[in-house]
Amino acid sequence: MNIILFRPAEITQPLPRQDPRARHILAVLRRQPGDSFDAGLLDGPRGKGTLVSVTPEHLTLAFAWGEPPPPLRPLILVIGLPRPQTARDILREATTLGVAAMHFVRTDRGEAGYAESTLWRSGEWQDCLITGAAQANCTRLPEVTHGRALRAALASLPAGAARLALDNYEAKAALATCNLIDDKSAVLALGAERGWSAAERELLRGSGFTLVHLGERVLRTETACLCALTLLQARLGWI
Amino acid sequence: MNIILFRPAEITQPLPRQDPRARHILAVLRRQPGDSFDAGLLDGPRGKGTLVSVTPEHLTLAFAWGEPPPPLRPLILVIGLPRPQTARDILREATTLGVAAMHFVRTDRGEAGYAESTLWRSGEWQDCLITGAAQANCTRLPEVTHGRALRAALASLPAGAARLALDNYEAKAALATCNLIDDKSAVLALGAERGWSAAERELLRGSGFTLVHLGERVLRTETACLCALTLLQARLGWI
Repeated sequence: MNIILFRPAEITQPLPRQDPRARHILAVLRRQPGDSFDAGLLDGPRGKGTLVSVTPEHLTLAFAWGEPPPPLRPLILVIGLPRPQTARDILREATTLGVAAMHFVRTDRGEAGYAESTLWRSGEWQDCLITGAAQANCTRLPEVTHGRALRAALASLPAGAARLALDNYEAKAALATCNLIDDKSAVLALGAERGWSAAERELLRGSGFTLVHLGERVLRTETACLCALTLLQARLGWI
Repeated sequence: MNIILFRPAEITQPLPRQDPRARHILAVLRRQPGDSFDAGLLDGPRGKGTLVSVTPEHLTLAFAWGEPPPPLRPLILVIGLPRPQTARDILREATTLGVAAMHFVRTDRGEAGYAESTLWRSGEWQDCLITGAAQANCTRLPEVTHGRALRAALASLPAGAARLALDNYEAKAALATCNLIDDKSAVLALGAERGWSAAERELLRGSGFTLVHLGERVLRTETACLCALTLLQARLGWI
């Protein structure tokens, strides 16, 4: 946690001692009354929090806000709904890497039941985003949708972005050597564990996607996702 | 698990039913007697295994071996000993990505006690490698050491490899744009969670390392490791 993030409604009231952020301030950062720490307002400015006082029940905090971080770069992830543990990793790590949007979609070879998991029903997915943003020292969260069909998600994508789909089977182009230097934004699509169906490949190609690969070694979905996002950012000249 | 890996001593005897590979063959791959599956001999050839018979205690398997996979590419990781859960992830995923060697070293800001964790004492670290190789459909495991001092590990590195060290604080060069296309091998060094000390930066620079960064966003150690290995392989022209 490189910045402690708060929702706007939270900064006007004491922070309960059992809140993980309170434990982080006291036990990990070892702050005493009068000490400050890096703080951020979700989708707002970064700044400094000050620990004003500590009671057995609460921490009283004060804040001084600075500038908001730059906007997230226009990199959109479209991914076949993976098993919840994989989805947690991707929600957190893709947020850390700074993607602007993630669309977890139903695919032919995915498990439709994953859309009904506790991760999505309980709102836990939002906690994954906040953890990922706090790691990156950023206040901005990506837009996230889940449960739409691949076709509906593709229809909602902005025009003008480079469109790449990871594929272990039919891709002839290496993502690592794609020429994207003139592109200003990109969409990366990847299937769930068992990949794309033939109909989905046709849909993707018909929607302007180039099938790309990450080399000969077969990666876990979450690893392929992070590696591809990193290569994409490098090819777009962003890192 | 894209290939089921066996040690040479294991292929001449029945596989106990409680072995995770036996469960994988029966429950995940749903193989029946007479069916075959992708198999590999550790540090040896890939081939096909055949399920010959099943008893309540054992699976009897037969093997037909083909060619060994190509050698691992000369990419060496030197990393400050991280907390065991992070080390597990790196052991597994860096193996999947195909590194040839990983050296987990003591660093000034690391926790020396991590070298004594169950992960290293029990040999569990080897299981992480096998899981990573099986994901990549490869039989080859990297060389791994742990617990040496950074200086000793650096002294043991081969000459002639490109040498890059990740650093969030003093690096001026972006790993994503390093010119490595004429290099045939590389070493990537990264500190543990709290990074390098001033003395370690000096040691690294004196040992021919260039300090490089991955952009402005602060990544978890395991994420930085995977992203950097991927970018390195791309810059070396390997993927």
